[in-house]
Amino acid sequence: MPRRASVFLVPTRHPGDAAAVAALIDAGVVRASDIVAILGKTEGNGCVNDFTRAYAVEALCHMLAPRLGLTAEAVAARIAMVMSGGTEGGLSPHLLVFAVEEAEAATPGGALALGTAFTADFVPEALGRMAQIHATAVAVRAAMAQAGIENAADVHYVQVKCPLLTSARIAAARARGATVATEDTYHSMALSRGASALGVALALGEVPEAALSDAVVGADWSLFSARASCSAGVELLRNEVVVMGQAPGWGGDLRIAHAVMPDAIALPAVQQALRGAGLDPGGGQLAETARLVAVLAKAEPSPTGLIRGRRHIMADDSDINATRHARALVGGVIAAAVGRTDLFVSGGAEHQGPEGGGPIAVIARG
Amino acid sequence: MPRRASVFLVPTRHPGDAAAVAALIDAGVVRASDIVAILGKTEGNGCVNDFTRAYAVEALCHMLAPRLGLTAEAVAARIAMVMSGGTEGGLSPHLLVFAVEEAEAATPGGALALGTAFTADFVPEALGRMAQIHATAVAVRAAMAQAGIENAADVHYVQVKCPLLTSARIAAARARGATVATEDTYHSMALSRGASALGVALALGEVPEAALSDAVVGADWSLFSARASCSAGVELLRNEVVVMGQAPGWGGDLRIAHAVMPDAIALPAVQQALRGAGLDPGGGQLAETARLVAVLAKAEPSPTGLIRGRRHIMADDSDINATRHARALVGGVIAAAVGRTDLFVSGGAEHQGPEGGGPIAVIARG
Amino acid sequence: MPRRASVFLVPTRHPGDAAAVAALIDAGVVRASDIVAILGKTEGNGCVNDFTRAYAVEALCHMLAPRLGLTAEAVAARIAMVMSGGTEGGLSPHLLVFAVEEAEAATPGGALALGTAFTADFVPEALGRMAQIHATAVAVRAAMAQAGIENAADVHYVQVKCPLLTSARIAAARARGATVATEDTYHSMALSRGASALGVALALGEVPEAALSDAVVGADWSLFSARASCSAGVELLRNEVVVMGQAPGWGGDLRIAHAVMPDAIALPAVQQALRGAGLDPGGGQLAETARLVAVLAKAEPSPTGLIRGRRHIMADDSDINATRHARALVGGVIAAAVGRTDLFVSGGAEHQGPEGGGPIAVIARG
Amino acid sequence: MPRRASVFLVPTRHPGDAAAVAALIDAGVVRASDIVAILGKTEGNGCVNDFTRAYAVEALCHMLAPRLGLTAEAVAARIAMVMSGGTEGGLSPHLLVFAVEEAEAATPGGALALGTAFTADFVPEALGRMAQIHATAVAVRAAMAQAGIENAADVHYVQVKCPLLTSARIAAARARGATVATEDTYHSMALSRGASALGVALALGEVPEAALSDAVVGADWSLFSARASCSAGVELLRNEVVVMGQAPGWGGDLRIAHAVMPDAIALPAVQQALRGAGLDPGGGQLAETARLVAVLAKAEPSPTGLIRGRRHIMADDSDINATRHARALVGGVIAAAVGRTDLFVSGGAEHQGPEGGGPIAVIARG
Repeated sequence: MPRRASVFLVPTRHPGDAAAVAALIDAGVVRASDIVAILGKTEGNGCVNDFTRAYAVEALCHMLAPRLGLTAEAVAARIAMVMSGGTEGGLSPHLLVFAVEEAEAATPGGALALGTAFTADFVPEALGRMAQIHATAVAVRAAMAQAGIENAADVHYVQVKCPLLTSARIAAARARGATVATEDTYHSMALSRGASALGVALALGEVPEAALSDAVVGADWSLFSARASCSAGVELLRNEVVVMGQAPGWGGDLRIAHAVMPDAIALPAVQQALRGAGLDPGGGQLAETARLVAVLAKAEPSPTGLIRGRRHIMADDSDINATRHARALVGGVIAAAVGRTDLFVSGGAEHQGPEGGGPIAVIARG
Repeated sequence: MPRRASVFLVPTRHPGDAAAVAALIDAGVVRASDIVAILGKTEGNGCVNDFTRAYAVEALCHMLAPRLGLTAEAVAARIAMVMSGGTEGGLSPHLLVFAVEEAEAATPGGALALGTAFTADFVPEALGRMAQIHATAVAVRAAMAQAGIENAADVHYVQVKCPLLTSARIAAARARGATVATEDTYHSMALSRGASALGVALALGEVPEAALSDAVVGADWSLFSARASCSAGVELLRNEVVVMGQAPGWGGDLRIAHAVMPDAIALPAVQQALRGAGLDPGGGQLAETARLVAVLAKAEPSPTGLIRGRRHIMADDSDINATRHARALVGGVIAAAVGRTDLFVSGGAEHQGPEGGGPIAVIARG
Repeated sequence: MPRRASVFLVPTRHPGDAAAVAALIDAGVVRASDIVAILGKTEGNGCVNDFTRAYAVEALCHMLAPRLGLTAEAVAARIAMVMSGGTEGGLSPHLLVFAVEEAEAATPGGALALGTAFTADFVPEALGRMAQIHATAVAVRAAMAQAGIENAADVHYVQVKCPLLTSARIAAARARGATVATEDTYHSMALSRGASALGVALALGEVPEAALSDAVVGADWSLFSARASCSAGVELLRNEVVVMGQAPGWGGDLRIAHAVMPDAIALPAVQQALRGAGLDPGGGQLAETARLVAVLAKAEPSPTGLIRGRRHIMADDSDINATRHARALVGGVIAAAVGRTDLFVSGGAEHQGPEGGGPIAVIARG
Repeated sequence: MPRRASVFLVPTRHPGDAAAVAALIDAGVVRASDIVAILGKTEGNGCVNDFTRAYAVEALCHMLAPRLGLTAEAVAARIAMVMSGGTEGGLSPHLLVFAVEEAEAATPGGALALGTAFTADFVPEALGRMAQIHATAVAVRAAMAQAGIENAADVHYVQVKCPLLTSARIAAARARGATVATEDTYHSMALSRGASALGVALALGEVPEAALSDAVVGADWSLFSARASCSAGVELLRNEVVVMGQAPGWGGDLRIAHAVMPDAIALPAVQQALRGAGLDPGGGQLAETARLVAVLAKAEPSPTGLIRGRRHIMADDSDINATRHARALVGGVIAAAVGRTDLFVSGGAEHQGPEGGGPIAVIARG
C-alpha cells in the first residue's frame, strides 16, 4: 500500500505554544495518530541552559496525550520530537509536523519518504564512541527500511536527536569502573552529535567503517556526512532518528533535495538545494515562496576563525556563544535565497558537512 | 584642479589595532595628510557600554599624531572617525580609510567624490530636535560643496557621527533652565541619530522642511533619508558629516551607488546597489569580488516584530540586544550577495531608510 | 478553629522539576489540598524572554492535577504560583510551598499567618493606574481577612503576581478607544509592579489615598510599601496576592519578620529581619542555619547609578540586564548574613522599598 | 634608608579614564616616578574579548609618558599594570596606584612593603608548565628581596599578571617542533594563572617542589597558594609580579593582612582579614570605612556546582560566563562586610586558594 508523507509548518507564539498543532488536529487537517515526528525551532539560547526545548516537548506531549489516548510519557516515546534552540538574527520560531498516512497511489518518480527508528538506551560510556556510531547506523538502516528506501542515494536528510553526559551519568559510569569519552558535559554534546553523524555517514556509505574509531570523533573533520543533522539534549538516553528521502512507493506532491554548504555564506549551495527540490531560485531570491514547505540546515562557526580569509569573532565572543552567531549568519544567508525566515537552522555541525559548512535540505510542493 | 578619492579597506586584529593603517602610510600607499575620514567596524556590542569604539579612535589618533605632526587631540579634530560597534554573525572587523589627493584628470562621467564638514558643538537641548536637524543640513550642504557636488541626486551615502545625552549633560541643561528631548540616555542615541538623518533628508530634498518638527523625530517613520547612515557616540559634541557621491570633476576608477533595502532580507536591493556600482551580481552571489571595495549599510529590527509576516524575536530578547540580531541578519544577507564578510553594517536606522529596512551603498573599482 | 501555616523549601534540578514537591505530597508530608501558594526561583534571565517561569508553573500544575483531581487549568486558578526568574551570582533554584491546615491550638503570641486573594481580570487600560492600585488594595484586605489579620502592622510580606501589557492587549484597548499607561511592553512590567505595590501600601496604610494618582506610578519613588514584593508575568490577567503575617489564632512554630534594606549592601537590615524572626545573626553570619526556613527580598539597581557614592555599571551594561546584576549583588549580601544561597531574591522593586533598596522578610522556626 | 609605600584608590568614569591618576600627579600628591604598579577593575566582561583592560593600560601609558619623559612603551615596561575586567553586581570601576618613596623613619612593627619583579619573556611551550612555575618563583623571591622581606610569612598578597597562548603563538611553537600545554586559547588563561599561582606557592613555601609537575597544573586543586592572585592577558609575554607584605624597614601607616575564603560566601574570612589589618568588623558591617584603603580578592565558581550543598547555576549559564557570576557574588559578600563596592575582586582562582574559595587581602590605614 503506498503511503504519503505530509509536512506542516506552523508558527509558535512562545516555546510552550502547542495551539497551532492542536488546531491542525482538531480541524481534521492531520490525524494525531499519523504524526511521526515534530521538529521545532524554539527561542532559547540553544546551549546548556536552554529550557525552551524541554518546555516545548512537554507542552506538545500534554496537548497530544488526550488526542492520542496516551499518557504524556507514552507520547514522547512514540513520536520523535527534535527541538533546536536558538532563533538568532531573523529566524522565526516554528514547528514542523511530519505525518504519514496511506495513499491511493504512489507518485511516479517518487515523493518525500519518511522513516523513524530509535536505538536502545545508551550507557554513558557509549556516548561519543564507536558503540554510538554503530547503534546509530543500525537505526538509520531501520528507518530507511521503514521508509522503503533501498538506495542510500535516495536519503536527503537524517535528523538525529541524541543524549549527552551529565554529572550524574558520569558518576554512574565511574561507579561501575567505566570511563566516559569526556568529563566535560558541554563537550559531551559535541561528541554525541559527532558520533551520531558518523553513524549516519556509515549507514549511508559516506565514510567506510575502516576509517572510524573512538579517536576520530571530534578530531578528524575530514570525515563527515553530507546529510546528517544531529542535536543533543538532556531529556533522552537513546538516539531518535528521522530519515527523510525521495523514494518510489510514496505518494503526494512533496519533494526533498539537499546540498552541502562549503562555508557559512554559500548562497549557491542553497540555490542548488532549491533547484533539486524543483524550485527556481531565480536571479537571487526565490519568487515562488508558497511552494517552499521547509528548509533544514546546520550552521557552525568556522573553526579556522576565518570565512573566505576574513576574520570572524564568533569563537572569541564571551557574551554571545559562537553557535548563536553562526545560526544568525546562516539564517541570513538562507533567508536571502528564499525570502523567508521560518527556517530550521540548527547549530553544532560536528561531522555534519565539512569544517565551517553544513548540509542543507529543502522540502517543496510539486 | 581635479581630485581623486581613494578608499582602503584593512582588517584589524583587535579594536586597538592601527598597525595596518600605519603600514599603508609608512609604505607610501597613502599620505597621512590626505586622509579625510576613517570608518570602522569594531568588535564590541555596539550599545551603551561598547568601549571598543573609543579605544579604536584613540589608537588611530596616537598612531597618526607623529605622522601628521599633531597632537592626538588635533588629529581627532581634523579627521572624521566613525566607529560602528558590533560584528555579529560573520561580520569581520575592519577599517575603511578615505583619502583625497589631487588628480591629473577627471574621469569622464565622474567618480567617487568625498566631502566632510562639521557642525559647531551642540548644547544638550538641541539634540534630537530641529536645531540638530538644521545644523546637520547645513553641514551636509557644506560637505557637498567641498566635494563639488551640485546635484543632490549625485549623493549616495552620508555618514554622520553625532553626540548623545549623558547624565552630566542633562544636568547642565537643567541648571540653565533648559529641557532636553529625553532624560533616557540610551534613547537619546536614537533621537540624535534620527534628527541627524532628518537633517540629511532635508539637505538632500528627501523630506520637505514643512514636514519637520521636534515631534516627528523618533515618531513618524514615514519620513526618512534613503542615503543617511548615522551613528551616535559619547566622545563628541558636534555632528561630523562625510558625504559620498558620484560626481564630475573627480578622477580615479572608484564608483559609488546606493539602494534601499525595504526589509532586512531584501537581497534584490543589495544586487541593485552592486549593479549601480558597475558590478554584475550574477545568478546570486557576486563573482568579481576583487573589484568590490566597500559595502556600507544600516540594519534595524523591524518594529512590527515581523519580517514578511513571520515573527522575529529580536525585540523580546533580554540576553542579546535587538540591534545585535539585526546586524547579524543583514550581514548574512549582504554576505550572501557579495561573498565577503568585511561589510560596514551599522545598527540603529531611525529615519534612515524605511521602517525595518535601511540604505545600502556599494563602492567598486571600475 | 485555629490554623497552622507550613512552609517547605525544596531545591529544583531544572525549571520543569516538580518531583520534589510531588515527593512531599506522596510521602504525606503535605496534603495537596492544603497548598495555597507556591513561590519559586527559576534559572532564567528574569526578563521578557524568560520562559522558565511559565515552564515551572506548567510542570507544577500538571503534577498537581491528578493529585487534586482537577485539570491543570483549575490548579492554576486555585493556587497562587509566583515564579521569579533569575538566580544570578550564587542564588540557588528552589520552590517554596505554602500550606494551611487546621491546628489543635493557636500558638501564644501568634505564628505565621497566610491569606490569599485574587482580583478580577484587569482590562489593559487599568494596568499601572489607579484602577489596579484600588483593586490590589481590596485584594490585600481580603487576604488579610482570610488570614484573620486585623492589624496592618501584623503583615510582614505581601507577594503579588500581576499582569503586563502585550502588543495584542494594547491593540485590544486601542480598538475600544482606550489608551494604556505605556505602549512599551517591557516598561508595562514596571508600571504593573509599581501600581500593585502602591495598592499594598494603600491597604497597609503606608501611603495615604490622597497621595496617589496615575501620575505617581513609576515616578514618585518617595511613595513605597516596606512589605510589598511584586512580580509581573504574561501568563495572567488578574493580580494574585499572598499575604504573610504574624498573627494570633495561628498555631505551629513558624515566625515571620521583615526589615527594609535602604540600599543593596545593607547587611544590618538583613540582620534586623533575622532578629525579628527570632534568630541570632551572631557576629556577622548566622550560625543556626537549620532554623531558617525562608528569606524573601527585592533587589533593584540604584537609579542614581551610585551605591554609597560609588559608581555601579548595572544600568549601562548592554550585555547583562541591570536587574540581573542587582539580584546577584543582593543575593551575595544576604548569603553573607545567612550562610545560605537558596534565597527568594526577586528583581524590579518599583515602589517596593526605597529607591535602590527593598524589603526583606525572614521566616524561621521557633 | 627606610621606604614608605602609598596606595591611592581613584574611581574611573570609563575604561580609558586616566584623568584621576593624572590629577594625583599634577597636584603633587604622588610623584609619577614613584609609581611602581597600577591595578584596576575595568567594566568589561573579564573574558576573552574584554578589550577594556588593554584600553585602560594604553590610556594610562599615554598619560604617564610625558610625565615620565618616556615613550608609552617604556612606561608599560617600567610599571606593573594589572587590569582585571568585570565589575558585575555592584562592583565599582577603580584604579589602585601603588607608589614607593623614601621615608624618614621605619614604622615600629613594620608597614606595608612593596616589591615588583618581572620574568623574562616566556616561549609558548613554557606556559602552564614547570618552566613558568620556576620562573615565577624566582621573580617572587626577587620582588621579596626588593621589598626587603626576608620571611615568607610577611607576604600577604602576590599579584601576578601572566601571558596566554594565542593561535599565532601556538603555531610558532609547533613550527619549532614544540608542543604547548593546551591548544585551547581560553583554557591557556587558566593554565597560565594556575602555573603562576603554583610558582608563588613554591616561593612562599606553601607547596613543596616535590609535589609539583606539569601534570598537577589545572588538575590537583589541593595544591594552592593562600596569597596568590593571578590574571592572564594577551598583551604581555612575561610574568609581572607585585609582592605586598607587612615588613620591618618600611614607614608610613599602611598595614596589610590576608585571609582565605573557604567558599564564596565566607563572610567570617573577610572579617578576619579586616581584623588582621587593624580594623574592627563590628557586628557585621565595618563602621570605620574611611580607614579601609583597599580590598583585593579572588572569586571562582565552585567546581562542584554547589555552595554549602546548594546548587548554583554558574557553570551551566551559556548567557553569562561563570566567572562573571562569581565576581558578582563575592563582591556582594565582601561589600556586606565592608560597606563599600570599590573592591578589587578578580575571577579565575586556579590554585589561588582552595576549590571554590580564594584569598582576600585588606590594606588599611593605621
